[in-house]
Amino acid sequence: MIESLVQRPVPSLLHLDSSADAGSVSKRLTTVFADIWRNAHGAAGYRYRDLSADPVPLVGPAYVALGTRVERHGVVPASRVAELIEDAAEEREWALTRSLIEQVLAADVLLFGVPMYNLSIPATLKAWIDRVTFPGMFTDPDTGDSLLRDTRVVVVMARGGSYGPGAPREGLDFQTPYLRAYFRNLGVAEENLHFVAAELTRAGDIPALAGFQEMAGKSLAAAREAVTALATRLAEPSMATS
Amino acid sequence: MIESLVQRPVPSLLHLDSSADAGSVSKRLTTVFADIWRNAHGAAGYRYRDLSADPVPLVGPAYVALGTRVERHGVVPASRVAELIEDAAEEREWALTRSLIEQVLAADVLLFGVPMYNLSIPATLKAWIDRVTFPGMFTDPDTGDSLLRDTRVVVVMARGGSYGPGAPREGLDFQTPYLRAYFRNLGVAEENLHFVAAELTRAGDIPALAGFQEMAGKSLAAAREAVTALATRLAEPSMATS
Repeated sequence: MIESLVQRPVPSLLHLDSSADAGSVSKRLTTVFADIWRNAHGAAGYRYRDLSADPVPLVGPAYVALGTRVERHGVVPASRVAELIEDAAEEREWALTRSLIEQVLAADVLLFGVPMYNLSIPATLKAWIDRVTFPGMFTDPDTGDSLLRDTRVVVVMARGGSYGPGAPREGLDFQTPYLRAYFRNLGVAEENLHFVAAELTRAGDIPALAGFQEMAGKSLAAAREAVTALATRLAEPSMATS
Repeated sequence: MIESLVQRPVPSLLHLDSSADAGSVSKRLTTVFADIWRNAHGAAGYRYRDLSADPVPLVGPAYVALGTRVERHGVVPASRVAELIEDAAEEREWALTRSLIEQVLAADVLLFGVPMYNLSIPATLKAWIDRVTFPGMFTDPDTGDSLLRDTRVVVVMARGGSYGPGAPREGLDFQTPYLRAYFRNLGVAEENLHFVAAELTRAGDIPALAGFQEMAGKSLAAAREAVTALATRLAEPSMATS
């Protein structure tokens, strides 16, 4: 009886899309994930941003100046960064940055929709990364441990061609290995990193890929299945708030 | 006598910096290159853009729509893209894009100043790449060959830590291998791609790197020497317009 009265935190999902395409495949797939999540948990812990329609401003000189000064002090918690601000430009940069960091720290699951643009991630997503990765923000100042070790990260990708294991262009994929390295470097545990890719999504548009439309359809169906399974698993109450 | 009257094209350098840092190391190094170039050729063929102070707008849905439509037609020359435009939004996107493409095609040498941001290139540079890489623009419509095969590409990088061959973080460098793959994929010849890196540039700021300040100084001096040698070689008249 008493246990049922204990308030559990609302499981929280931060969903960020980065495609500029009105018919985006990556967005369709992250929508599948988000729908399953909200069916399980409601909308209270759900937060969405379309980084293409509503871009994160590029970092400026005052961001770099403040970040450099903060880093000289070792690991400074977000609550004490304001003490190191020296002018109005730095104040503006920090105001644009702090809320994004807090959204990441509050999330149980980070969900990214990521098309491949020119072999890598879109500039829109890199703009978010360049701003949110402020020195020390994802490190526990007392222990030095990562604050993101238990955060689940789901990256749902779409690529016009084929870059999977064994494909001739496998070595040209700077989407998966980069995001893996980035999140591992922030301290996200390997087992909490999930990548799903729909491949050959441009087979209907690019004459040279015309023979791959069936393979593209299969890849999209498999990606949808993988996203559904992942969303179902991560939406289980025991997973979401553990 | 007659030969001296033949007008040779003015050698042309397109110089793009992407650092947001007021004290940027990569910008100081590209300035060394640009100064040597202008001493040799004057300012007529020199074009500069600071992609941080003067960013390239992020691509939007109309860019993707136009690019996809163009790609369905195979290789379309820049002069005929306008015929495929369907609305005012596409017209705006193309106007923002075409002049950047023409700058690249006109350049004998492309010079990039590139700090490492979060293991990769800054969002500012990716925004330029995502816009300038419009389908088919760097391919000869008649032969299918790359129009950039003879273009010299010089990438001058700065990294806070050490990512060179043999460094523990070598596998975390998504700056060099990415830009190499990107330009090779566009058809730039391997021998025309030049990378120079100043490493450990944050040794004076990051407490954990305090022991590496001497190494950082040596790396910067070596990078400056390499940039000087490269600029001197590429500024020779026979190289610049061959």
